[in-house]
Amino acid sequence: VDENVTTRWFDPLFRTEAMRRVFSDRARLQGMLDFEAALTRSLAAIGIIPNDAAAVIASQCRADLFDMRVLSLRSAAAGNSAIPVVQELERLVAKRSEEAARYVHFGTTSQDAMDTGLVLQIHDALKLVESDLVKLSAELVRLAEENDKLLMIGRTWLQHAAFTTFGLKAAGWASAVARHRERIEQLRPRCLVLQLGGPVGTLAAYGDKADQVAALVAADLQLGLPDLPWHTHRDRVAEVATTLGLLVGTIGKLARDIALLSQSEIAEVAEPAADGRGGSSSMPHKQNPVGCAVALAAAVRVPGLVSTMLAAMPQEQERGLGGWQAEWETLPDIFELTAGALAAMEHVAAGLNINAGRIIDNFGAAKGFLFAEALSTALAPKIGRAAAHQLVARACKRAVADDCSFQDVVCGDSEITAHLSASDLREVLDAGRDMDASARLVARALARMKFAGGETPENKEAGHG
Amino acid sequence: VDENVTTRWFDPLFRTEAMRRVFSDRARLQGMLDFEAALTRSLAAIGIIPNDAAAVIASQCRADLFDMRVLSLRSAAAGNSAIPVVQELERLVAKRSEEAARYVHFGTTSQDAMDTGLVLQIHDALKLVESDLVKLSAELVRLAEENDKLLMIGRTWLQHAAFTTFGLKAAGWASAVARHRERIEQLRPRCLVLQLGGPVGTLAAYGDKADQVAALVAADLQLGLPDLPWHTHRDRVAEVATTLGLLVGTIGKLARDIALLSQSEIAEVAEPAADGRGGSSSMPHKQNPVGCAVALAAAVRVPGLVSTMLAAMPQEQERGLGGWQAEWETLPDIFELTAGALAAMEHVAAGLNINAGRIIDNFGAAKGFLFAEALSTALAPKIGRAAAHQLVARACKRAVADDCSFQDVVCGDSEITAHLSASDLREVLDAGRDMDASARLVARALARMKFAGGETPENKEAGHG
Amino acid sequence: VDENVTTRWFDPLFRTEAMRRVFSDRARLQGMLDFEAALTRSLAAIGIIPNDAAAVIASQCRADLFDMRVLSLRSAAAGNSAIPVVQELERLVAKRSEEAARYVHFGTTSQDAMDTGLVLQIHDALKLVESDLVKLSAELVRLAEENDKLLMIGRTWLQHAAFTTFGLKAAGWASAVARHRERIEQLRPRCLVLQLGGPVGTLAAYGDKADQVAALVAADLQLGLPDLPWHTHRDRVAEVATTLGLLVGTIGKLARDIALLSQSEIAEVAEPAADGRGGSSSMPHKQNPVGCAVALAAAVRVPGLVSTMLAAMPQEQERGLGGWQAEWETLPDIFELTAGALAAMEHVAAGLNINAGRIIDNFGAAKGFLFAEALSTALAPKIGRAAAHQLVARACKRAVADDCSFQDVVCGDSEITAHLSASDLREVLDAGRDMDASARLVARALARMKFAGGETPENKEAGHG
Amino acid sequence: VDENVTTRWFDPLFRTEAMRRVFSDRARLQGMLDFEAALTRSLAAIGIIPNDAAAVIASQCRADLFDMRVLSLRSAAAGNSAIPVVQELERLVAKRSEEAARYVHFGTTSQDAMDTGLVLQIHDALKLVESDLVKLSAELVRLAEENDKLLMIGRTWLQHAAFTTFGLKAAGWASAVARHRERIEQLRPRCLVLQLGGPVGTLAAYGDKADQVAALVAADLQLGLPDLPWHTHRDRVAEVATTLGLLVGTIGKLARDIALLSQSEIAEVAEPAADGRGGSSSMPHKQNPVGCAVALAAAVRVPGLVSTMLAAMPQEQERGLGGWQAEWETLPDIFELTAGALAAMEHVAAGLNINAGRIIDNFGAAKGFLFAEALSTALAPKIGRAAAHQLVARACKRAVADDCSFQDVVCGDSEITAHLSASDLREVLDAGRDMDASARLVARALARMKFAGGETPENKEAGHG
Repeated sequence: VDENVTTRWFDPLFRTEAMRRVFSDRARLQGMLDFEAALTRSLAAIGIIPNDAAAVIASQCRADLFDMRVLSLRSAAAGNSAIPVVQELERLVAKRSEEAARYVHFGTTSQDAMDTGLVLQIHDALKLVESDLVKLSAELVRLAEENDKLLMIGRTWLQHAAFTTFGLKAAGWASAVARHRERIEQLRPRCLVLQLGGPVGTLAAYGDKADQVAALVAADLQLGLPDLPWHTHRDRVAEVATTLGLLVGTIGKLARDIALLSQSEIAEVAEPAADGRGGSSSMPHKQNPVGCAVALAAAVRVPGLVSTMLAAMPQEQERGLGGWQAEWETLPDIFELTAGALAAMEHVAAGLNINAGRIIDNFGAAKGFLFAEALSTALAPKIGRAAAHQLVARACKRAVADDCSFQDVVCGDSEITAHLSASDLREVLDAGRDMDASARLVARALARMKFAGGETPENKEAGHG
Repeated sequence: VDENVTTRWFDPLFRTEAMRRVFSDRARLQGMLDFEAALTRSLAAIGIIPNDAAAVIASQCRADLFDMRVLSLRSAAAGNSAIPVVQELERLVAKRSEEAARYVHFGTTSQDAMDTGLVLQIHDALKLVESDLVKLSAELVRLAEENDKLLMIGRTWLQHAAFTTFGLKAAGWASAVARHRERIEQLRPRCLVLQLGGPVGTLAAYGDKADQVAALVAADLQLGLPDLPWHTHRDRVAEVATTLGLLVGTIGKLARDIALLSQSEIAEVAEPAADGRGGSSSMPHKQNPVGCAVALAAAVRVPGLVSTMLAAMPQEQERGLGGWQAEWETLPDIFELTAGALAAMEHVAAGLNINAGRIIDNFGAAKGFLFAEALSTALAPKIGRAAAHQLVARACKRAVADDCSFQDVVCGDSEITAHLSASDLREVLDAGRDMDASARLVARALARMKFAGGETPENKEAGHG
Repeated sequence: VDENVTTRWFDPLFRTEAMRRVFSDRARLQGMLDFEAALTRSLAAIGIIPNDAAAVIASQCRADLFDMRVLSLRSAAAGNSAIPVVQELERLVAKRSEEAARYVHFGTTSQDAMDTGLVLQIHDALKLVESDLVKLSAELVRLAEENDKLLMIGRTWLQHAAFTTFGLKAAGWASAVARHRERIEQLRPRCLVLQLGGPVGTLAAYGDKADQVAALVAADLQLGLPDLPWHTHRDRVAEVATTLGLLVGTIGKLARDIALLSQSEIAEVAEPAADGRGGSSSMPHKQNPVGCAVALAAAVRVPGLVSTMLAAMPQEQERGLGGWQAEWETLPDIFELTAGALAAMEHVAAGLNINAGRIIDNFGAAKGFLFAEALSTALAPKIGRAAAHQLVARACKRAVADDCSFQDVVCGDSEITAHLSASDLREVLDAGRDMDASARLVARALARMKFAGGETPENKEAGHG
Repeated sequence: VDENVTTRWFDPLFRTEAMRRVFSDRARLQGMLDFEAALTRSLAAIGIIPNDAAAVIASQCRADLFDMRVLSLRSAAAGNSAIPVVQELERLVAKRSEEAARYVHFGTTSQDAMDTGLVLQIHDALKLVESDLVKLSAELVRLAEENDKLLMIGRTWLQHAAFTTFGLKAAGWASAVARHRERIEQLRPRCLVLQLGGPVGTLAAYGDKADQVAALVAADLQLGLPDLPWHTHRDRVAEVATTLGLLVGTIGKLARDIALLSQSEIAEVAEPAADGRGGSSSMPHKQNPVGCAVALAAAVRVPGLVSTMLAAMPQEQERGLGGWQAEWETLPDIFELTAGALAAMEHVAAGLNINAGRIIDNFGAAKGFLFAEALSTALAPKIGRAAAHQLVARACKRAVADDCSFQDVVCGDSEITAHLSASDLREVLDAGRDMDASARLVARALARMKFAGGETPENKEAGHG
């Protein structure tokens, strides 16, 4: 147990500990301190402040020297988190060197420390997300490959439609995950940048050395250097939120699919069983899809949180009044819920029980209607789409009325056999056709998919080395 | 410091401790335990379970006997908070009486405990909200009464429009607050009701005594008795959220008005100064409107959280999958942010600095355009609205061009004086007219306003006693 | 076809024509004109303006005299809808009497006309909603009564849980609908009130007769008289939105339940079939639940729209800049989508096909696990909850492994029969118990339910007469 | 006036006609017909259907041959827009060739037509957005260049803070706009792709030629070819929404800044005046910032609409039930409101009146407090940050108390002059320093800014040719 990470009741259910650590109070503090240290080092390197002072300041930029309770209470009065941090840092430094204390937070402002600190947290958080996406992706690709010929019922509007394969379904999930990895890759250089502007964003305190200072601080923190200070332009931060919002939507879709397939009446898949997981306080026979519930809950919650980040964007002049403050707890919430949803579905995907027998039984029970569309398509060029539609619909109704299989009705329907020979019909009523089509799609998709496998972009680059 | 209330960095800024206590893990736990105890007592009273067993169970329904960390971790596996509570309760009871332990959670289900526990928390939380509304209301009524003749510029589209009074502005705020109190009064009997249904809501375990059981449990907990178990009908819980959402909108409006009036260029009011409050890390002269920022931040955040509660409503069959879980942290967030916003603006209203001199200077500087509408209205019956509009607009432009007062231009404009005598003009150009009109409105409103004063509905009733 | 109602492609699918008529451009116009006419009549009655003028003005307050295209284009420049209406009204009046034209829009402002016009539209719209709720309520009560003993599987987390009845499910829907009717009844007197304030809300133009004017205009329009002008206090308008948001959540829950029960694998209910309804362009055998899709789409859309209404609330000083304008299209959207969802589910409820045979077959296929909770509850007082849980879980597993019925396993399990006699077991394994419990609940609920039947509050009152 | 574009009252205010044309019913129809024609041509090219049939079908894929009213009404029953289009197309084709009619919509499904049609609309809509961004960008860059040395008050928390320049403010706006252009450029290849999958996404009807068919259709429509059919993976469509949501946030920030600077008390800028624009129905002297109101209204509305798109993402299995339908009107709304906001602020930026005299007067009236931060920063290295802060704060208070300038107080304060020489103080109290710092930032930013100028990416490429 990490004592630096506060745990509230539902945290272990909805949020990962790793992500909660990135957005813990302590990490928030350390992010600001890293900014202050890097700024100090940079100012010293350029000669704006003495080297000795910078060294003392940097030595005190350690979160464990601070009392979180004090910072928290003072922030309530100050209206932001940086003011008490700077005060405390100054006090700590002064204990070692009064002279050094004079250069704490030199020429900068609260928002510089808070925003750059946040960007450092986002950097770490995106790494966790990417790492989870790599793992999830690997599981989904595996499911696609292993099940590329496992025929199953395709369902539209929650009704039986036509055949698909489990592999195609899994490849669809994997393909969406790959796009999210591409989005994250693209936003990194845009969003992981330094914020340094001073009180109103002019960097005036550093005179004609401002450019140099900014470049050095960015390099020190391994962040990008933006065109301009961006304190009241929140598109970068909001874009992180929207990108996670899209990702959670996909995770929610994966969870919805699996939860629906897990219904008692369908039972084609089941979440991995684990001791104490998904039981019921009153019903011993139940195995609740807890992982899916976690992901679906995130998919219900994150859209509203993303709308908050967007609604907060029109921030006033050189510092927002209300909008900026609205971000402070919201973006961490989005990250933590995203991480929780990802972890839950990664676990589900990794241990998913696929009941192939039940899948076969289910389409056996579907009475052949799954061929209706294929038959309709085969008849259309002979007699027209509308007529084909009617003929097939009539056969469907008869199969229901007589409680017999659609295939039998079709093969015995002279109006149909007038247009399609026995061998034509065999081909149409052969689910193998769908299986082959799906398998080809899966093969093509996996081959083309960017970021399809488990490797990270870094690994790939390394591979080129 | 209450050790049972977890404090994260921005909690003291955005949330009150009292409300965080109501939604602390411990209170959540105690809510469920209160339900279990009441159920047990009721079952014993009816004779469904032994009295002795009930007494032992009830004796263990104390939050301080439980280890929150264990409950939290087990909830992650169980998928809800009640399962580990029931397990632990059973274990605690068994230590005293194995026989009593057999009747723990008898005939009920997790959602009964969680929902009824939540309703108990909502009950306490609404009391806090009501109490804050009483205080805020009293301050706003005081501001309305004290300033009912303090003329000030009315602004529309952020432009000078015509005269109003500070009292009328404050009465408008107070009137809105009164409506929110009425809304809360109306939702109480509808929302503060027991949830008891057993696994799927049939209350089957209690046979033909189910009605009696439900009535007794409700009475024991001083909750209303609903028509039916309502576990997957979330309108009650969601209505609490929407009612708070409306309230936060009003608090945000109050904050926006005050923040705008506090701008350096306007400076008609200022938040109460306090040591260390609203300072700047880089600008010693600043006094930031921190209270308004807290309220405006809530007004940006709560709408998205309310949309989550609404989006979560379509819960599946006899227990939701994703939607229910989405509520668990969201409703507490809404309550806590509401309480924080209320407390912030209560503090601002109670200590608001009204700079009457500046208010007078400002309308002095407004060059008389504030009379433009009154003049236009006075001219319209003489020459028609459009012609009056044009004549007045021309006078406005001349006043700007010649940098002189609108009143002087008007009194020297022969086209205008052709229609309005000197005494007519005096009346029109007399801000006192607006002052009187506003004062009458304020007086009438305060007289009619339900819940206008500081008294609570309970006090009123008591007064009738 | 009503030429005054614009129809875009998806309007007939998602929105009712009746509601679109209430929020048509023409009705918006007529609402403002009704305000102008009532104001004029009231001012004349008090003697502020000549009677003749009022008569001429009122005679021109007819929407069919206006060219919508002109109004629309001019509104783009003016920034609101009232300015061009007033200009055109003045022009029309002037054609009949130049003198009368001088009194058009006397002492009032755009927002008065727009807000009061909107309140008149809301009045009509709520009537439509209430009328639809009455009809839906009647259908749901009928479904509850007709099916109060129709046993069916209760499902939690989309898994089989225990028995319930179709009647209880329907009664739950009906009970929620009854609460929405109560909410609408409570908001009416609060929200259906006049807005009259003049430019900044002081009613200064009418001098000491302002009270009288406001009272007369309110009476003329059959609206309530508010404490104060409320132009920038939007809680009334926003409350209409949140109340509809809650309602749509319930309609979405009804739709989700029915859509899930309509799945091919469950098929316990089906939307009423109709020619051309719910077909597929490629699959002749399909019957898509179109009504549920309409309601669920509304349940996805309305929460975001409600959050917009809440986010728009903090409007600046005496006239909002951005927030007010954000309401203009949003509230109509909410009403129209609500009406569309209501109409869709009213149609579904009225013609719902309940396949009782399939319902029976389904619980036959559920292997008796539906009794697991009842057995567990019966065993708990004998051996403790945890031991009972384990025993029952073991029986469940054995039934699965041996592919036999749970009941048979249970009756042959000596550890179970050691605690429960044959007659005890018969009672526990008798679904009739659940049926009776549910039927009692339904009977009690229908008896207690406010607004349960088809009658309107008005009808009830009439009945008292 | 384009008769194919429906105009409701507020459309000209909030939405551009060009964008409404892209999302008109007619364009929606033509998008689907373009898909059907391209599919037919491709199938013929590969030899799956006869060339003659394809030619006849393609010849009828013209929106003007269809009756929108019929399509709209039938869509209400069918549950989507494609079914009636396909039926009507078949009827039209059959009039020319019964044989050709058999190949209409061959092997495809409604969602293929609807989604690909939508992608074609998105393609056109993004072009409009990009074109508006180019124009807005050019205006903002011009404002930055022209005003790079126009000193003005920087405001944080709506309070005077320190100096900035109008040029730096404008450069900040331009920089954000440039990032949005980059985002749109990145999403294009990801989102502008074909959807073709057949009933459940397997492309089974085209057998082993499915790959070829998809590639040809994509090429015909100049769309990208996706890995896989993506019908129930909505991240592409939702990403378009989030990208616009971010953009609208920036436009809202621009509008908020300008609206605040336009306040009567500040009056540093004004929206361009135009006949009939921004007038008041009751106040002739007013010039309302209508453009800003339009943009701010969009910034209030779009976040909720984006949350709808995200909430709609978890779509069931092979076709969504509720979620998909929720997108149909929402994405067009987002595009239209974005276009309206962009156009409004483009107009405002192009004609913005900058009142340099007032800007100078305002910082003259600010009593030198704008130098407080610079003085504090200069003193800190001498006496420590906290002591400097206190000294400066004291000077601020004295300047207020004595109603004299901060500069005078400072130069006469012996504690300050003990640490800073007269020449040091001159430098600190010289706004030119800020001006130079800002000008350097602007110059650097404009030089580095991607997409800074008016040129489009296409133009740039052309330049490389």
